[in-house]
Amino acid sequence: MSEPAQTLDGWYALHDFRTINWTAWKMLTADERQAAIHEFKQYLAKLDETQDRKEGSHALYTVVGQKADFMLMILRPTMRELNELENEFNKLAIADYTLPAYSYVSVVELSSYLAGDSDEDPYENQYVRSRLYPILPKTEYVCFYPMDKRREGNDNWYMLSMEERKDLMYSHGMIGRQYAGKVKQIITGSVGFDDYEWGVTLFADDVLQFKKLVYEMRFDEVSARYGEFGEFFVGHLLENSGIDRFLHV
Amino acid sequence: MSEPAQTLDGWYALHDFRTINWTAWKMLTADERQAAIHEFKQYLAKLDETQDRKEGSHALYTVVGQKADFMLMILRPTMRELNELENEFNKLAIADYTLPAYSYVSVVELSSYLAGDSDEDPYENQYVRSRLYPILPKTEYVCFYPMDKRREGNDNWYMLSMEERKDLMYSHGMIGRQYAGKVKQIITGSVGFDDYEWGVTLFADDVLQFKKLVYEMRFDEVSARYGEFGEFFVGHLLENSGIDRFLHV
Amino acid sequence: MSEPAQTLDGWYALHDFRTINWTAWKMLTADERQAAIHEFKQYLAKLDETQDRKEGSHALYTVVGQKADFMLMILRPTMRELNELENEFNKLAIADYTLPAYSYVSVVELSSYLAGDSDEDPYENQYVRSRLYPILPKTEYVCFYPMDKRREGNDNWYMLSMEERKDLMYSHGMIGRQYAGKVKQIITGSVGFDDYEWGVTLFADDVLQFKKLVYEMRFDEVSARYGEFGEFFVGHLLENSGIDRFLHV
Amino acid sequence: MSEPAQTLDGWYALHDFRTINWTAWKMLTADERQAAIHEFKQYLAKLDETQDRKEGSHALYTVVGQKADFMLMILRPTMRELNELENEFNKLAIADYTLPAYSYVSVVELSSYLAGDSDEDPYENQYVRSRLYPILPKTEYVCFYPMDKRREGNDNWYMLSMEERKDLMYSHGMIGRQYAGKVKQIITGSVGFDDYEWGVTLFADDVLQFKKLVYEMRFDEVSARYGEFGEFFVGHLLENSGIDRFLHV
Amino acid sequence: MSEPAQTLDGWYALHDFRTINWTAWKMLTADERQAAIHEFKQYLAKLDETQDRKEGSHALYTVVGQKADFMLMILRPTMRELNELENEFNKLAIADYTLPAYSYVSVVELSSYLAGDSDEDPYENQYVRSRLYPILPKTEYVCFYPMDKRREGNDNWYMLSMEERKDLMYSHGMIGRQYAGKVKQIITGSVGFDDYEWGVTLFADDVLQFKKLVYEMRFDEVSARYGEFGEFFVGHLLENSGIDRFLHV
Repeated sequence: MSEPAQTLDGWYALHDFRTINWTAWKMLTADERQAAIHEFKQYLAKLDETQDRKEGSHALYTVVGQKADFMLMILRPTMRELNELENEFNKLAIADYTLPAYSYVSVVELSSYLAGDSDEDPYENQYVRSRLYPILPKTEYVCFYPMDKRREGNDNWYMLSMEERKDLMYSHGMIGRQYAGKVKQIITGSVGFDDYEWGVTLFADDVLQFKKLVYEMRFDEVSARYGEFGEFFVGHLLENSGIDRFLHV
Repeated sequence: MSEPAQTLDGWYALHDFRTINWTAWKMLTADERQAAIHEFKQYLAKLDETQDRKEGSHALYTVVGQKADFMLMILRPTMRELNELENEFNKLAIADYTLPAYSYVSVVELSSYLAGDSDEDPYENQYVRSRLYPILPKTEYVCFYPMDKRREGNDNWYMLSMEERKDLMYSHGMIGRQYAGKVKQIITGSVGFDDYEWGVTLFADDVLQFKKLVYEMRFDEVSARYGEFGEFFVGHLLENSGIDRFLHV
Repeated sequence: MSEPAQTLDGWYALHDFRTINWTAWKMLTADERQAAIHEFKQYLAKLDETQDRKEGSHALYTVVGQKADFMLMILRPTMRELNELENEFNKLAIADYTLPAYSYVSVVELSSYLAGDSDEDPYENQYVRSRLYPILPKTEYVCFYPMDKRREGNDNWYMLSMEERKDLMYSHGMIGRQYAGKVKQIITGSVGFDDYEWGVTLFADDVLQFKKLVYEMRFDEVSARYGEFGEFFVGHLLENSGIDRFLHV
Repeated sequence: MSEPAQTLDGWYALHDFRTINWTAWKMLTADERQAAIHEFKQYLAKLDETQDRKEGSHALYTVVGQKADFMLMILRPTMRELNELENEFNKLAIADYTLPAYSYVSVVELSSYLAGDSDEDPYENQYVRSRLYPILPKTEYVCFYPMDKRREGNDNWYMLSMEERKDLMYSHGMIGRQYAGKVKQIITGSVGFDDYEWGVTLFADDVLQFKKLVYEMRFDEVSARYGEFGEFFVGHLLENSGIDRFLHV
Repeated sequence: MSEPAQTLDGWYALHDFRTINWTAWKMLTADERQAAIHEFKQYLAKLDETQDRKEGSHALYTVVGQKADFMLMILRPTMRELNELENEFNKLAIADYTLPAYSYVSVVELSSYLAGDSDEDPYENQYVRSRLYPILPKTEYVCFYPMDKRREGNDNWYMLSMEERKDLMYSHGMIGRQYAGKVKQIITGSVGFDDYEWGVTLFADDVLQFKKLVYEMRFDEVSARYGEFGEFFVGHLLENSGIDRFLHV
């Protein structure tokens, strides 16, 4: 058996993608729609308060194409809270005018491949903490996709030695660093929680950087030989101030 | 032909995942909802009685994310009883406000890979009996996933000798033992009953232990080369006392 | 080109799996439900008459789990009759309260791998006839799954010589024989008729025998290297006398 | 790069599979149903006229099992006409009581693998023309399936030389010839038009010949190593005179 | 790590495939339908204005077969505009009578494999600009399919050297050139944006050229060994003047 990498685990994450049932939404009266929007904003205001207290974070983005109409990504200290927030959303009036499109359950993760040697408890390190318990940025665009490490024939990530994986991940990490300042990347682990092993959430003001980063990485051996990718979602920031316009019919 | 491992088989298991149709549920009057909840609780009370008599067991968990809203796992001495309980559930009023999300049919199983040499009838052994006919724990979290042993090219589990499989399973079992006290694992066999060969149900109070256990095992050759995994579901305990709140709209 | 095995072909088979729309069914009046049940029983009585004349056979089983609520398996001398019986079912009132879940189109088949050398016309042999035109048993449980022989890389069944396939099938058949008296197996061929190459229908009073048989066979090279399996369904006998109870709400 | 086979291309083909919404159909009055049937027959009469003028052809078959209730296969000189006929069907009243089940877009094709050497323009050859612009037979049964040539590892059809492919296709064609008089086969090419590379439509009065032909071919190297198959559909002729009975409820 | 090809990126692209709910559409009054058509045409007129200003482009095609009824392909300078146009479409009355069928999110792309050596900023080159910011042609037919470069075993595009990829792409490009004047091809990149890596949109007056081009390319090593293809859609031009007829019931 090959030695697993150690991980540091932070806030739990729920990516919740919804499609709007526009036909049903249009059949409401303007007052009914206004009430549903108001209630939805109260829900978001509560999330904002939690975020202000740094006890969690969230991000709301519209999604381009037919895969979904919007994504609400929520981070919380426990899985139970995510479950409760999800159920609370389902009980909102607005939820009756949405259809489930996709969801992803995971936990913010830092892997030890690139870790230095230190006696310090990493959970006490401020930099580490800022990455495990991140306040999500409000960039113009978001990209989300789940992924696995391949286990097929000669391309079996989990049969490589720790040393081999470390070397491969190092070169992989170097690509990511070139995008520092352009793309913020949050890795969440989902082994035992959802169908893929990781979720990747990228934030950028220039949507083209997602393509450049993912394309460049695909030539790196970690992705080229060992990456298996799920669906890709790309979306645009939906600020509280834009909700009325988004839902106006 | 390679010699199959012998298995001991206990109670039959039905994992029944349901999504709540919240929109329809909200359209009921408070009285109608109350009546449906009351009837559902009576159904659960009957399951509790069976469990009290140790003639079966069950567990009710909410499910995180869009895959389902709750899972009812039931264990019974015969498949027929599972079928009847499933049909009985479908006839409850609450069932009209749920949609089928996923189900799994299997039987609690102990494999002989790790068995010692004994003349004793294992079905008379108290420890074995407690594992074949388990009363399900009430941990805070549950994890369920189905799995196969791979049969592809050079990675064909079923072409290995009994000796090879025994060695591989031994090291695999050692990982599981490290989680004793943290994660309770129930393996159910489903060859001939459902689409995968086994179902794995994990119980833990700390949800992160699911990720640690499954991730660590993935580096073990049994999983790395021979494991094929289906969907993963993770959920939170729904006690009888929490049902009203869960279904309150 | 490798020499194909010759097959003897008997009655055509339709496996028709249906899910009950319980919500809609409950909305009927007791009289409407009773009328629908009565009409359904008349349809089954007609099937019984055909079976009494030995001009076909059928079996009705409930299905465990969410894949379906019941399966009606029908055998007839021509495909046209199956098509007509299917359309006739669709026109019954009960059909309006069911949803299609899965179906399988095939023909009862005996393969020549295990055939002896004889000048006799096999279709005149009474034993052969009883297997090509079987009256389906009324065992407590049924199991159905479709399967293919694999054609992948070095595991390509259809590139083996007749001799190799014959040897492999011989050992495979030996496993089946050990279950004589416990499991009755009906093989139906579906090449050119449906998505897999064969359907396997197993009948047993002890449901655990399905698991034991299929699991043991999985270690046999025919399954281990060459078997590709579709969905598995397991069900419980639904006798005419049990229909009222099954559909009572 | 390997030399592609040349193809001769004839009429464009649409295979349109539909499921009947029997529940909704039954809710109509007898007069409404009669009007919808009458209008549908007028649509078919127009297709008959085109066929009488040899400017196209079509065939209507019921489909066995739950995959669909009927298939309308239409051949026309241009893709545009197929598109218009499809839209015209959608505007019929009967279409409101059908659900899309599957469709296939392709063009009747003859491949050059078996072509002789001739200076003649093949499109002027009467035999070739009768195969490129066929009037569909009215056999009792039909079989349809789409297929690809495999491109995987060592089994990559498109990396073989023209000579190798020619030899393989020759032996493949020899099997087909043995079924002359029993099975009529129409090959349609769909590269660039639909998800598979070819559609195969077989016509026979004896449905068992489909199984025999497809099974025998599966042992031929072209299918054994290079064939990838989609869904199989089998159906029974629905003559104009049988439509009333088929749709009578 | 192998060196990635550089790409030039132009307008963002949304391919939006919709199925018409003809049953619901027919239930409207003629006036309601006329109003919905009028509003839809206003939406298209706005797209026309943008195109006249060369600030984007679009194309509207009906789709053959059941995969969709029409496709609206839109090109715009930013992803945000695509998102807004999609949401605007969803708010039109006509949208209530359509169902999402498929969509694709990408960006017009030129790859550097065939690039010459020049000091010029390619984005200033008029020929390059005309390909990055194309006004879509109004050919009679369109073909769309998404594709990946394969990463499997020995057929791993992303493990090839730049030189190898360049040579392979050169011969691939040569095939495309033979269709100059017959087929106009627009390649859009979707790594990080959608599930495949590229979208291919072909325009031609002779639909058969799609088949000839894609078939010929399949024998080229780039496709034969490294091409993985998604769904294929083929459609016919729907000019503004044809919309009334298309939607007339």
